[in-house]
Amino acid sequence: MATANENFLKLKAGYLFPEIGRRIRSFRAENPDAKLISLGIGDVTQPLAPAVIEAMKRAVDEMANAATFRGYDDSGIGYDFLRQAIIENDFKSRGVDLEIDEIFVSDGAKCDTGNMQEIFGIDNVVAVSDPVYPVYVDTNVMAGRTGQADEQGHYEKIVYMPCTEDNNFIPELPGEHVDIIYLCFPNNPTGAVATREILTRWVDFAIKNKAVIFFDAAYEAFISDTDIPHSIYEIEGAKDVAIEFRSFSKTAGFTGIRCAFTVVPKQLKAYTKDGKPVEVNTLWHRRHCTKFNGVSFITQAAAAAIYTPEGKKQISKIINIYMNNAQIIRKTLSEIGYTVHGGVNAPYLWIKTPNGLDSWEFFDQLLKKANVIGTPGAGFGPAGEGYFRLTAFAQPQDVNEAIERIKAIS
Amino acid sequence: MATANENFLKLKAGYLFPEIGRRIRSFRAENPDAKLISLGIGDVTQPLAPAVIEAMKRAVDEMANAATFRGYDDSGIGYDFLRQAIIENDFKSRGVDLEIDEIFVSDGAKCDTGNMQEIFGIDNVVAVSDPVYPVYVDTNVMAGRTGQADEQGHYEKIVYMPCTEDNNFIPELPGEHVDIIYLCFPNNPTGAVATREILTRWVDFAIKNKAVIFFDAAYEAFISDTDIPHSIYEIEGAKDVAIEFRSFSKTAGFTGIRCAFTVVPKQLKAYTKDGKPVEVNTLWHRRHCTKFNGVSFITQAAAAAIYTPEGKKQISKIINIYMNNAQIIRKTLSEIGYTVHGGVNAPYLWIKTPNGLDSWEFFDQLLKKANVIGTPGAGFGPAGEGYFRLTAFAQPQDVNEAIERIKAIS
Repeated sequence: MATANENFLKLKAGYLFPEIGRRIRSFRAENPDAKLISLGIGDVTQPLAPAVIEAMKRAVDEMANAATFRGYDDSGIGYDFLRQAIIENDFKSRGVDLEIDEIFVSDGAKCDTGNMQEIFGIDNVVAVSDPVYPVYVDTNVMAGRTGQADEQGHYEKIVYMPCTEDNNFIPELPGEHVDIIYLCFPNNPTGAVATREILTRWVDFAIKNKAVIFFDAAYEAFISDTDIPHSIYEIEGAKDVAIEFRSFSKTAGFTGIRCAFTVVPKQLKAYTKDGKPVEVNTLWHRRHCTKFNGVSFITQAAAAAIYTPEGKKQISKIINIYMNNAQIIRKTLSEIGYTVHGGVNAPYLWIKTPNGLDSWEFFDQLLKKANVIGTPGAGFGPAGEGYFRLTAFAQPQDVNEAIERIKAIS
Repeated sequence: MATANENFLKLKAGYLFPEIGRRIRSFRAENPDAKLISLGIGDVTQPLAPAVIEAMKRAVDEMANAATFRGYDDSGIGYDFLRQAIIENDFKSRGVDLEIDEIFVSDGAKCDTGNMQEIFGIDNVVAVSDPVYPVYVDTNVMAGRTGQADEQGHYEKIVYMPCTEDNNFIPELPGEHVDIIYLCFPNNPTGAVATREILTRWVDFAIKNKAVIFFDAAYEAFISDTDIPHSIYEIEGAKDVAIEFRSFSKTAGFTGIRCAFTVVPKQLKAYTKDGKPVEVNTLWHRRHCTKFNGVSFITQAAAAAIYTPEGKKQISKIINIYMNNAQIIRKTLSEIGYTVHGGVNAPYLWIKTPNGLDSWEFFDQLLKKANVIGTPGAGFGPAGEGYFRLTAFAQPQDVNEAIERIKAIS
């Protein structure tokens, strides 16, 4: 008799975005003429940069010709041309030296942040922020690293680190034993960023506890303050304790293209139960090459194009469009009395729900009265209750209209 | 202290193809002028079909324009246009009715065959053929479903089903208890195919034992005998017990594009430990949407193009090129005294090594004397010892030259 992985049965309700999708479809069915504007799911709207389009067309042409056709990416972990461009532009430029074998190209940071836990033992104690990107938690539930969820939605055995106005949405160091710590800066959903000092505190904590930090830096391209680190490896000692996840999804509008990469330093160690060190890079390499078969050549060529001089200019223009959106949302909602966090170094705005509404109530109100879609804070964890996430990724004219509509009902 | 998943430490040596890569690099370093021909790793060489190229270019253009730009594939499991084309062309045409929610589009059959075990309990007894595609075994080792490997390379707790000349490379039904059975037809590496009668025997066995069959049909496009089933769902009752994996990698030369799909029928059940049925489709949907973020729109548009009338003609021409290669290899090697299996309904040829050489010895001999690369049968399991896999995926002129060289040293 084939048995199911019963850990899956512990998972609460649907994944957040399908639930939002269901509510939208139900609203649309009853209101077919409503013009909905989404500031909800973090999907981009600007077309791909011209340099990316050109690179893809060239790559497609290469695939049409036997002499230049490419099959499998033999390395399984990314073409050298892309990994070299990443090292030079994303890291060397910020004083971080990485070797090419420390970069693993993949089809998404969601996959990588979801899969990385797999190479670690089942007994590790996992710490996450609350609110949190649900993938970190759900993948640990599926793996069996948790007990059941309580009524709040907190899973037994996971250490939750509340991020609230009181701590400026920066988690405190855990007072209890933890082994794997998920950090995301710039943060999804709160838009908070971590200073050098804050990151140093976390790196030191991990060194002291032989813990590993899963550092999700998918939104680093949106950092505007010059003194905020873009990579955790800008912090002394981080290579001994941190894995960093990056993505082209928001940086270059690749949500529909699928390309990301993960940095696993060779000096990073996990341990056998009897204390013998094991290279995490080797384990991830083995996992990557056994369960994944590389990223399309066309996609990797597209990703490399964003590191060309024209590519850089073009994607920076696109990021400016989104960050202008963020500024408009922030300014206008603040003016009409909302408390707004984030949106300065991040494409996410974290808004206090008004009039004591809970976050799904506010979601329904915004959907029904303003025909604007956001994301209920409670979907990211109990500490997200009373908050609401808006994203800056819509078209500017839609952002303006959405904000006017919110004003009108406020 | 972050602990490692110690199951990874049970894995033997490198994954087969990296080991081959190492030997080739070492030979190349010493013989920089040798013109190597690879009939080894199953990578395609023909360029993409014109219909696919056109579809990709159109899709790239759509991504360059805000009005037609596409971000995330909202369903997470594939655009309807592709899944509908799959249902109509791959299944309905063969008398199999599937619903759209039973098709999951992904970036590769390697990923899907590797990840599928995750939604099943850790105590399931897994049965695999020997020889076998290493991914089936290695992913179960990583998950902790096995003990240590013995000297032969067989892992404790896995049930190996030898495929030899005696049983025509078709595994016998296990005499012991098994819960999950991996079958691959047309087979990699032996090139064997399963008749309707053989598949019926397996489906009946699975029904009787409430077992689940993981049916890898990645090479179905190479079947030439009209009475061989292309899908396990052509067999009565199979939807109750089988998951089917398909891939565009070999069908349409997509090894460098990355697109595949998996069929998980809604009526397929796994069970909780106390015998309660659980829908496997629901579990896989949850896994897919939590750990994966969909396939590129451009890639899905490319895949859909192979189902157009021109696309079908073009990919069938490409498959004919490869199957002509197979025929030439089969015919010529047979004539000079080799025993050759496969190559009729499959792009793989399974050749008995001559003169009692073991399969790595024959690999080294072919590499050094003929400068031809194949794959040692022992890399697929102990029962592969004494065999050697050649693939039909090289350019025809390279196949001819490789065969002449093998002739010359035989």
